[in-house]
Amino acid sequence: MSTFNVELKKVVDDSYEIEIGFDLQQKLITDIKNGLVVDITKFAVITDSNVKDLYAVNILNSLKCTGYCADLFVFEAGETNKTRKTKELIEDAMLEKGYRRDCCIIAVGGGVVTDLAGFVAGTYGRGVPFINYATTLLAAADASVGGKTAVDTPLATNLIGLFNQPEKVYLDIAAWKTLPLRQVSSGLAETIKHACIASKDLFDYLNNHINEIMNIERTSCEHIANENCRIKYEVVMKDERESGLREILNLGHTVGRAIETVSEYRLLHGEALSIGLVAEAKLALKLGFINETQCDSVISLLRKACLPTAIPDYIDREELVKKLYTDKKVKNGQLRFVIQKGIGDVVEFEKGVYAAKIDEGIAREIIFEM
Amino acid sequence: MSTFNVELKKVVDDSYEIEIGFDLQQKLITDIKNGLVVDITKFAVITDSNVKDLYAVNILNSLKCTGYCADLFVFEAGETNKTRKTKELIEDAMLEKGYRRDCCIIAVGGGVVTDLAGFVAGTYGRGVPFINYATTLLAAADASVGGKTAVDTPLATNLIGLFNQPEKVYLDIAAWKTLPLRQVSSGLAETIKHACIASKDLFDYLNNHINEIMNIERTSCEHIANENCRIKYEVVMKDERESGLREILNLGHTVGRAIETVSEYRLLHGEALSIGLVAEAKLALKLGFINETQCDSVISLLRKACLPTAIPDYIDREELVKKLYTDKKVKNGQLRFVIQKGIGDVVEFEKGVYAAKIDEGIAREIIFEM
Repeated sequence: MSTFNVELKKVVDDSYEIEIGFDLQQKLITDIKNGLVVDITKFAVITDSNVKDLYAVNILNSLKCTGYCADLFVFEAGETNKTRKTKELIEDAMLEKGYRRDCCIIAVGGGVVTDLAGFVAGTYGRGVPFINYATTLLAAADASVGGKTAVDTPLATNLIGLFNQPEKVYLDIAAWKTLPLRQVSSGLAETIKHACIASKDLFDYLNNHINEIMNIERTSCEHIANENCRIKYEVVMKDERESGLREILNLGHTVGRAIETVSEYRLLHGEALSIGLVAEAKLALKLGFINETQCDSVISLLRKACLPTAIPDYIDREELVKKLYTDKKVKNGQLRFVIQKGIGDVVEFEKGVYAAKIDEGIAREIIFEM
Repeated sequence: MSTFNVELKKVVDDSYEIEIGFDLQQKLITDIKNGLVVDITKFAVITDSNVKDLYAVNILNSLKCTGYCADLFVFEAGETNKTRKTKELIEDAMLEKGYRRDCCIIAVGGGVVTDLAGFVAGTYGRGVPFINYATTLLAAADASVGGKTAVDTPLATNLIGLFNQPEKVYLDIAAWKTLPLRQVSSGLAETIKHACIASKDLFDYLNNHINEIMNIERTSCEHIANENCRIKYEVVMKDERESGLREILNLGHTVGRAIETVSEYRLLHGEALSIGLVAEAKLALKLGFINETQCDSVISLLRKACLPTAIPDYIDREELVKKLYTDKKVKNGQLRFVIQKGIGDVVEFEKGVYAAKIDEGIAREIIFEM
């Protein structure tokens, strides 16, 4: 018997830039011309049926006009298509068109597109570079920092995927104008969550500027886009592998993700999250970490953003309770929740531990009361 | 327009140990008890139908007896099952059994099992730890160093996957005794390749000890297992992302992989590689980098290892030439080959460039002559 030691210690630099602004398509092309990705002349533009004609075709044509090889890979819009099957179809289409390891993927769209395309990029040829061109507020709030990519499966959301950092992210706020109001609201849920866990100032700003934001006025939208990046970055920087602190970004998601799945995606992610934030604020209230006024202010802000704050009647409560156990934070079969502490903070239960074991009974009580 | 910088520079330590010896199952269990993987009490043992009863069930039972939760996930043996579909079935079975991010995967088997299970581990819950318990010479030669995991698709082999380093690798040489002779030969092809690219000494050792090795005698098998690790490690260490030097491990694979696919896996990987090594030795001869004697000595050693050295009649040569273009080394539609230089070395075409552009005509000539 003998042993052989494989030493693989190295410095990895996954740093990247997020560009926040209006109409960034030309900036993207200029950046590519200036060497954003090295030694790449072939671009796979991945998008969905909603964003294709609004943005992706323009980007495709600009790439071609600049002399690059480029193809469009389009899948049907919707969270229900964020699946292994869609990933497989895109891979096969890329292989069919001769894409190998010498390509770069550009994701153009919302969180579903960036999650899926980032995952495709992570496993295509064991990893090719990718760029995110995010066209929704939700993608801006959620997908721009953290490197999380994933698909859903019938049994769990976002459990198959990987951590994969993009070469660059573009947050095109002008694109938010093309979103239906329902999508803008849905995106705001993540921003409100960021305010709840980390910034009373942002919470107040949202309360005071909700109308400008919902009308996609430049100054206030750029402000919240920046704040989203800053808060998420500060949390993620301190804990890239989501072992402790990063779990605070999961506020509202334990119940939210479960509702999203049980609703069979009739609810948008942000809508389900909104209901999750209410449920988990009620949990914090029950545990004494926020008071009635604070709990009400969370509900009130979500309502101002035109988000739902009650569990719809068609959701089977028993199924919902059962679905909580598919949450990623579950350890040894025990439900774990992040708990809000006042507005702009979370409870640190012990050093570096931000998710607490919660008895099913308490969760059940809240869910059946809502 | 504003920019936000995400700084993600960090030190990553993916170091691990390879244990080489006879009957290492008890060592595996002892290592786990001693904290090989931290904070894990749940183990998914992934194996194929060949290895299940020989090794995987024992490991499963030992884990259970030691007080761990463990389940067996078995797929049908064979390279044709190294697919996205099999990956999906295993993922669903693991989700069904309640596996979340707090688990560890143990791959028990040959290269197909370790490639597939390592890929499952890389994307399950965005990455869970995994341990390789390799039961074949091929896995020992190929899968123990380098972190490559992948599945095949109808259009290309090993193009969907990722780099993922295990927590530890066990090379159980006793398990080689359970292999059919054809599998032992197949495994030797990678060892012979290592000798061709990096060690005249290993080449001579193989020539002198081929019978002991094929009888799975302990000393010579441990020697070649160690040499395989050392050579692969030295190449991989210098170039973990396979940008330049690492491509030399691809000797024989440009033609070999293509033959393997066109044969619809009637040829084992090592058999196809053997034919690929002959084809690429002939290419080196044509280009003047090895002489006739050296070319013959490669063919002679492969024959001694009971490996095929001619392209079977049933392989459509035109299809084979076409299939060469699905190789990962192809750049801008141009075939690229690693070229052997004498025995134990490769040609460095320019600094850090070990794969040369080769006209299809020359490749075609060799393929149609074989």
